[in-house]
Amino acid sequence: MRFTKPGPPQAVLLSYVALIAVGVLLFMLLPTTKAKVSPIDALFTVTSAVTVTGLTVINTETQLTDTGKWLILSLIQIGGLGYMTLTTFLLITFRRKIGVKERLILSESLNYPGVYGLVRFLKRVVLFVFIIEAAGCLLLYIHWVPSMGITGAAFPAFFHSVSAFNNAGFSLFTDNLIPFRGDLYVNLVISALIFLGGIGFFVIHDIYLLFTKRTERLSTHTKLVLSLSIMLVVFGWLGLILTEFAHYNGIWSLNWKERLLSTLFLSVSSRTAGFNTVDIGSLSESSLFLLTILMFIGASPGSTGGGIKTTTFSVILLSVLSYVRGRSEVVVFNRSIPQDLIHRAMVVMALAFTYIAFVNLLIDRIEEKDFLSTLFEVVSAFATVGLSVGGGEGLSFSAQFSSFSKILIVLSMIVGRVGIVSFALALVGREEESRIKHPEARLLL
Amino acid sequence: MRFTKPGPPQAVLLSYVALIAVGVLLFMLLPTTKAKVSPIDALFTVTSAVTVTGLTVINTETQLTDTGKWLILSLIQIGGLGYMTLTTFLLITFRRKIGVKERLILSESLNYPGVYGLVRFLKRVVLFVFIIEAAGCLLLYIHWVPSMGITGAAFPAFFHSVSAFNNAGFSLFTDNLIPFRGDLYVNLVISALIFLGGIGFFVIHDIYLLFTKRTERLSTHTKLVLSLSIMLVVFGWLGLILTEFAHYNGIWSLNWKERLLSTLFLSVSSRTAGFNTVDIGSLSESSLFLLTILMFIGASPGSTGGGIKTTTFSVILLSVLSYVRGRSEVVVFNRSIPQDLIHRAMVVMALAFTYIAFVNLLIDRIEEKDFLSTLFEVVSAFATVGLSVGGGEGLSFSAQFSSFSKILIVLSMIVGRVGIVSFALALVGREEESRIKHPEARLLL
Ligand SMILES: [K+]
Ligand SMILES: [K+]
Repeated sequence: MRFTKPGPPQAVLLSYVALIAVGVLLFMLLPTTKAKVSPIDALFTVTSAVTVTGLTVINTETQLTDTGKWLILSLIQIGGLGYMTLTTFLLITFRRKIGVKERLILSESLNYPGVYGLVRFLKRVVLFVFIIEAAGCLLLYIHWVPSMGITGAAFPAFFHSVSAFNNAGFSLFTDNLIPFRGDLYVNLVISALIFLGGIGFFVIHDIYLLFTKRTERLSTHTKLVLSLSIMLVVFGWLGLILTEFAHYNGIWSLNWKERLLSTLFLSVSSRTAGFNTVDIGSLSESSLFLLTILMFIGASPGSTGGGIKTTTFSVILLSVLSYVRGRSEVVVFNRSIPQDLIHRAMVVMALAFTYIAFVNLLIDRIEEKDFLSTLFEVVSAFATVGLSVGGGEGLSFSAQFSSFSKILIVLSMIVGRVGIVSFALALVGREEESRIKHPEARLLL
Repeated sequence: MRFTKPGPPQAVLLSYVALIAVGVLLFMLLPTTKAKVSPIDALFTVTSAVTVTGLTVINTETQLTDTGKWLILSLIQIGGLGYMTLTTFLLITFRRKIGVKERLILSESLNYPGVYGLVRFLKRVVLFVFIIEAAGCLLLYIHWVPSMGITGAAFPAFFHSVSAFNNAGFSLFTDNLIPFRGDLYVNLVISALIFLGGIGFFVIHDIYLLFTKRTERLSTHTKLVLSLSIMLVVFGWLGLILTEFAHYNGIWSLNWKERLLSTLFLSVSSRTAGFNTVDIGSLSESSLFLLTILMFIGASPGSTGGGIKTTTFSVILLSVLSYVRGRSEVVVFNRSIPQDLIHRAMVVMALAFTYIAFVNLLIDRIEEKDFLSTLFEVVSAFATVGLSVGGGEGLSFSAQFSSFSKILIVLSMIVGRVGIVSFALALVGREEESRIKHPEARLLL
């Protein structure tokens, strides 16, 4: 027997689908594009914004009107923060009570453990978003005024601050952030925004509690996320330097400062912001594969980023190490990781691999384009990254795809944003536990 | 503290390494090749035979002498059956007692559950091997006499029967089995040998017990292996027809009978025999990716084949389905799969992915050759399959690799044959369980 009422996973999935539907309607009805675009491309663009992916089949700078750019920016902000989060925040602001059911859905949407302190947490999240995005906007504005002018710098500064904090990867520049590849200031500001957006609201909240002395120590979750995020950035940086070394078509054609900056930026951005300061299509195949792995791992839970998440990755890693050493406990920061978390992490990994393999196989079969470029695009969509080897004219590789494959990429962005397990739960639905207990199977592995 | 005595995983790993060392010595000292070959190529060839992989950097037909062919065949038989199995069988034959330690190692080597009935099981295994290989040899001999003559057909029949049952993939013909792509008889005999070799001795033994009425029903393990093996063959067959459909460079350039036969044969052979009746390099990229998945899944445990194994694959699949449905029990054939088996299956998958990703990244970086061809070669080595897009003159893609990459492929074949978890256990070794219990960590995924 299946439950008939939609549970939290269904509600979150439906909220994204509804937001995309409204977005497509607005995109088609308002004067958003300079020339007419196909409904598929409108769906693709809106989904890419709502899921904060950043893959493009329409050039944001040259093909969108100002209305179009504002619509994309609004969808990024709503999608990044989460539709449920925003509506609940509005409800609270207008002093409406929210019930237990809404709290459960909100807790799923925000990835907050439990419902205790949820409303206070929500209010702070919205405040964090406002402060960080305002600061980022101001920092970029000051830097861009000399070259773009007092009025000209305003919208780009705002747009890129919001896009970076939400890990959206959309840029107003045709070549994304390639013009700024040697600009240390822009690199640092955007990287900081991406990093803060990617570690998750829970972690930001935890750091806030420590700084305001409301707690004495950081939670295990925060310690794990921070140490792993820093380790992955360093690992990715060193890895990319090795995979690009002496490969003179790409990053190695630049000077040393730009080589170091662009590999570091790419390491930060690949999990899962999706900005690029170099042409991804010019990188070596080993760099593309390394980036695919980084994209797959992704950002941290309860953030604007995607992927299987840093925590999932580390739980699997620690669990495997424990197993090989013959230990029954999996320990991190003197805490034992419970069995059900390990099981969930393994399920996430298995489902993610299966999903990516299947969609990749389909698109490979249909498009018959380069294998690695296709795999890169599928993982980029699934992990809501937005990096792409490119499809000409500043667009993503998807721009060369047939409608059917574009729809598969759209689906992958939604699955990636909702989360593969939540998506599966939303589709299949839980059954009531059978009371029959079966005898144990004896299997050899 | 670590145990200092080698446990069963170490003993199995060491037995393969020792066998390879002896094989290389014999290969270099005896007149095995017509022209001089490098030590790396000798190591590669011997490892490929001992691990029953079938990747070649030396052409078996044109470059090896008769002595060389016999040496390869002997190494295939010893490596396929397992060195421990053979030596123990010889010990028993000469009426020597075998101790508890030998029994534990043998049980690990044969993938037999426990030590009860182990010696009787071992004797039957050797008998099965003899009967099946003799039958295969006879069937091939009868068929090949008209074209190859009464004496000429003998060695090819013997060689291919042994190579097929041991899932070795070595062939005496320059183009592997391409000359027989339309020959239904050869296709059926070789496929049957591969299938029997790939389901595992435990399953063959179980079927034998049922036929001789010593048991009334098949074990859950046997039911699972048989149903999954058949499902995977059918799934692979249909999949390959779809991925090759209207792709006129490869299989679709043949007539319908050959199209159906060669896709079916490839589906059987890719897990993990490694024979081919078509040029793998001519297949579409989606076919190569589908084959990579089939190779990765591999054969069944306790068999001559590799990969993560059909049972591991099905335990993961069933566990994910149960999780999504919210069931705590994972049920197969009315039996519940115990938690530690699920955990081990997940560890196998995670380790296999990590190993393949890392080695693939290294070889990509060093060789800078086509990504998919390289990935295909790495998975083929890891899963001891032996299929390859080819490197010219009937050799594998590895033939174009540098010495360092060849050594990585050699390592992958050994890791694949020993099993990734056993390999890790052999390297790391179990630690004594700590008595300290840690409080639970609270993490978000
Ligand atoms: K993104
Ligand atoms: K093989």
